[in-house]
Amino acid sequence: MREAARLGEAARGRTAPNPNVGCLIVQSGKIVGQGETAPGGRPHAEAVALKQAGKKAKGATLYTTLEPCAHASDRGPTCSALIISAGIARVVIGIKDPDPRTAGQGIKMLRKAGIDVKCGVAKDAARASLSGYLSRIERGRPRITLKLALSIDGKIALPSGESKWITGEDARAHVHLERAHSDMILVGRGTYNADRPKLDVRLPGLEDWSPRRALLTHGDTVEGWEILSSPQDVHRLHDVNDLLVEGGSATATAFLSADLVDRILIYRAPILVGEGKSSVGYIGLDAIADAHGRWKAADGTGLGIDRLEVYERVRDEEAG
Amino acid sequence: MREAARLGEAARGRTAPNPNVGCLIVQSGKIVGQGETAPGGRPHAEAVALKQAGKKAKGATLYTTLEPCAHASDRGPTCSALIISAGIARVVIGIKDPDPRTAGQGIKMLRKAGIDVKCGVAKDAARASLSGYLSRIERGRPRITLKLALSIDGKIALPSGESKWITGEDARAHVHLERAHSDMILVGRGTYNADRPKLDVRLPGLEDWSPRRALLTHGDTVEGWEILSSPQDVHRLHDVNDLLVEGGSATATAFLSADLVDRILIYRAPILVGEGKSSVGYIGLDAIADAHGRWKAADGTGLGIDRLEVYERVRDEEAG
Repeated sequence: MREAARLGEAARGRTAPNPNVGCLIVQSGKIVGQGETAPGGRPHAEAVALKQAGKKAKGATLYTTLEPCAHASDRGPTCSALIISAGIARVVIGIKDPDPRTAGQGIKMLRKAGIDVKCGVAKDAARASLSGYLSRIERGRPRITLKLALSIDGKIALPSGESKWITGEDARAHVHLERAHSDMILVGRGTYNADRPKLDVRLPGLEDWSPRRALLTHGDTVEGWEILSSPQDVHRLHDVNDLLVEGGSATATAFLSADLVDRILIYRAPILVGEGKSSVGYIGLDAIADAHGRWKAADGTGLGIDRLEVYERVRDEEAG
Repeated sequence: MREAARLGEAARGRTAPNPNVGCLIVQSGKIVGQGETAPGGRPHAEAVALKQAGKKAKGATLYTTLEPCAHASDRGPTCSALIISAGIARVVIGIKDPDPRTAGQGIKMLRKAGIDVKCGVAKDAARASLSGYLSRIERGRPRITLKLALSIDGKIALPSGESKWITGEDARAHVHLERAHSDMILVGRGTYNADRPKLDVRLPGLEDWSPRRALLTHGDTVEGWEILSSPQDVHRLHDVNDLLVEGGSATATAFLSADLVDRILIYRAPILVGEGKSSVGYIGLDAIADAHGRWKAADGTGLGIDRLEVYERVRDEEAG
């Protein structure tokens, strides 16, 4: 299942509004088929893996991060039907699909056909790999990642606004990878005016993965950019699973103040800036004690001379 | 030699103005004696290890991070003389003592007595463990460490000045360990007025290790505190190997502006403060490019939910 989650994770940013599912088919201890949801959302991961397995699917075990779909579409048969007709003997599922059109119907259909179905296996890994999709279905908004390139002392630029370059090439390449795994990238009007950023993915072979671009502004529309007039507008983004907010400071502050950030990526350079532009402005904090317990360090890794720190929002809903 | 360096490192902060040397005596593949410079600087590490080895020192190999002393003192015989009379066959030395009173005299004396002497073994580890002493002898000032407890976004306090607590217990215990390994701790007048910090070592068994306290101020003297009127005054501290600067922001900025910081300890809490007090003010930076190449990330480790980041100043002199 963890391998299926890894496959699904690789499709993040290309499948919305469909989920980025990962699927493995195992026959006699060997992987005979694997796949993830294709770009654009079709074919589904199960269909990809079944096609690869061919006749070896008969009697095999299928692992999938998300319950196979059971709602008819004019874009092809349901995955549950495909699994049944391929003769799969056992289906192991990470999590039930919260999409009300499936929501248990897939499992019911498979069991009705005599297939042994187990659901809830390594569900944390499955949930994590599908976090964008789940956020959209369960909370009505994308999973939101805030990216900041900071100095040791938390500055994003000199007082003049100069910010090129805080971080090095390896860190910037990693940002492009994060862009590729987002459905949409958003910047503030200030960053747009200062940099006219292309926000494209400049990694060999991933140029096509460049996501949609959005601007947080009360101002005029800009060709090629979608407009959000406030962070709350993320609730209008019905076809975005993963949103990457790239700053600057006013935009970061607006999203943090609205508690609309789920994950923070800090690209930390080993430099001191001193007097300069802070990364985050007033976010409603009246006591240091209130700042605690909201974020947890989830990951950390070196990127050349820089370091990536990943923080995740701790929410009570997740504790339940 | 690395083990000897580790022993010497353990004595850091208690031996000034003497060096914190580590010494091991090996006979037939077994450690028969080991020691580090005692609190107050005497007895020396070699004397401690020789006493422990007793008769087993005869024909043994002695490893020491620093060249044994050869200048007579009324506090006892020189280590070179002790080594010769113990019948040590071979002496392996990390680095030559830059103290002009020894500076090769120890090696000469040992060789004259027919001992096989090798110098420059694992000299980086030896230099690192003796960095405070070496800084004082070679640069005429202590090795200076700046400690900052910061949020993700680099803040040390709310706009009100409230800073309790940015970091948690594990991080604060680590600060006490760093204090124990410093000869002197310095804070600015602002921190003194706001907190009246005791700056003592509150770790079981290490209470005696509390270092001398200093204040950076143009103002009145304070009982129990030594006064530095500017960072440059560190050149007056002839009996301090390791100085720990604990802030606040003005003090950190003054030391950084004067390029009088060799090592930065960032105790980073997983919190966002937003609007608040920055850790460092104007340090003379006119372009981001000029900020690069001055610091390198030397270490990083988790301390409870916090993280310690260690940065070291990259100086051209060290490249030579």
